[in-house]
Amino acid sequence: MIKIISVGKLKEKYLLDAQKEYTKRLSKYTKLEIYEIQDENDNDIVRALIKEKEKIIKFLKPQDNIILLDLKGTKVSSEKFSSLINEELTYKSNITFIIGSSNGVHEEIKKIASKTISISDMTFPHQLFRIMLLEQIYRSFKIINNESYHK
Amino acid sequence: MIKIISVGKLKEKYLLDAQKEYTKRLSKYTKLEIYEIQDENDNDIVRALIKEKEKIIKFLKPQDNIILLDLKGTKVSSEKFSSLINEELTYKSNITFIIGSSNGVHEEIKKIASKTISISDMTFPHQLFRIMLLEQIYRSFKIINNESYHK
Repeated sequence: MIKIISVGKLKEKYLLDAQKEYTKRLSKYTKLEIYEIQDENDNDIVRALIKEKEKIIKFLKPQDNIILLDLKGTKVSSEKFSSLINEELTYKSNITFIIGSSNGVHEEIKKIASKTISISDMTFPHQLFRIMLLEQIYRSFKIINNESYHK
Repeated sequence: MIKIISVGKLKEKYLLDAQKEYTKRLSKYTKLEIYEIQDENDNDIVRALIKEKEKIIKFLKPQDNIILLDLKGTKVSSEKFSSLINEELTYKSNITFIIGSSNGVHEEIKKIASKTISISDMTFPHQLFRIMLLEQIYRSFKIINNESYHK
């Protein structure tokens, strides 16, 4: 099972539609849960990260196998990402992806993550980023199942 | 002025809506033209790349300053990408971005590109990739103009 905990809410209709489409496609391969956390509108970044961390933790269970998405994480190809997902799901039966706010996440979240992955050196708005992650998860299952996927 | 030549057509409604939204936002900063090329459905990859190349070239003018988007290009941060766009537009007054098919582009296109940029080590469908590029161009103008943009 795959869980995504994302700081920030999807607002744009086209992104909600994109998420709906990927959720539908992914239902063939895995159970998927998406939790949204309201990002903190606090000029004190440290204080905002602490508040967001507390809200993230509420969605975590002790057995959760956490992969953090972060600008400074390890960069991998789609093929590598796919085998990583396959391994994690085989040995730990679940993955919880955490997407932080534009300020990242609190150090404590970094510490409890088993892996930290970076999709790009470029900063994306969390809304679009969530769709990019869903796309790579979907692509991973296509690769794992040897199904063609080019578009 | 910015031109995007993209191999493959946008089909999903949510991506067309996303493109419309970014086109509207970008109209404040630059003239933007987007040209779509039908990708070749040819099992012979080399032959497909040659055909796609010929179609790409039809949209090029001698003065075009080409930046190719490619998995194997240079990876840059959003800030770096922004200053690159600023410089190119200042000194050459135009940028033509080329997005190839899932098989990339013909060698000849690689040779005429002044720069090759990679957004990610991961492979994205060209449709979503075009939105990711529009987002980074939009973010670049926000950075160039010192306008806040976090979402």
